[in-house]
Amino acid sequence: MINLDDLKYDNGLIQAIAQDNDTKEVLMSAFMNREALEKTIETGIAHYWSRSRGKLWKKGESSGHMQTVKAIYIDCDMDAVLLMIEQEGGACHTGYRSCFYRNIEGDVIGKKVFDPEDVY
Amino acid sequence: MINLDDLKYDNGLIQAIAQDNDTKEVLMSAFMNREALEKTIETGIAHYWSRSRGKLWKKGESSGHMQTVKAIYIDCDMDAVLLMIEQEGGACHTGYRSCFYRNIEGDVIGKKVFDPEDVY
Repeated sequence: MINLDDLKYDNGLIQAIAQDNDTKEVLMSAFMNREALEKTIETGIAHYWSRSRGKLWKKGESSGHMQTVKAIYIDCDMDAVLLMIEQEGGACHTGYRSCFYRNIEGDVIGKKVFDPEDVY
Repeated sequence: MINLDDLKYDNGLIQAIAQDNDTKEVLMSAFMNREALEKTIETGIAHYWSRSRGKLWKKGESSGHMQTVKAIYIDCDMDAVLLMIEQEGGACHTGYRSCFYRNIEGDVIGKKVFDPEDVY
């Protein structure tokens, strides 16, 4: 087991990427502190650190769109983790399956899977 | 086109994830400043901001393992970009195809594609 003390936290945080375990689509990118990573490992459900709210964030707690974690990978310099997940509903609070639903040209290329007004 | 001034830079930086355009493997996670993103868009070759060296970093400049960018996606809250790339050689300076070559259990699950001593 990787020692969680060996991770390179920057202001207490590491990058966390969630990738769909089946389709390999990257669904979101967020941050974790050590507690969020511990909770994720313990429970098998993705937890992050919400920078905007300044607190631990169990993904899907209000929307029901939880992420079941199938594997966790860690990068070479130990400042990022990659979660292979099964996504309930959509990862994005705007209703899209992935948070990366636009290209840099500004076109919407993502798939809307729920109406945010129905779940928040 | 997304206005690059509208991105949410944190201390001047956004998260940048590189994903293999063919295999969909996530190869690395790094940071970009506005200049790195502009250079990436202009040249079609991935540029990042090296936090350790404190400077613009054209990926593969010393190793030759450059990344040709096929598409750029931007996330909902505009603080992360996802690059779909063609990776020359390996993305990781340790010689692995992906920087995420270990799982949280500490097992090496990645594929070594070059010997770092040969290229650096």
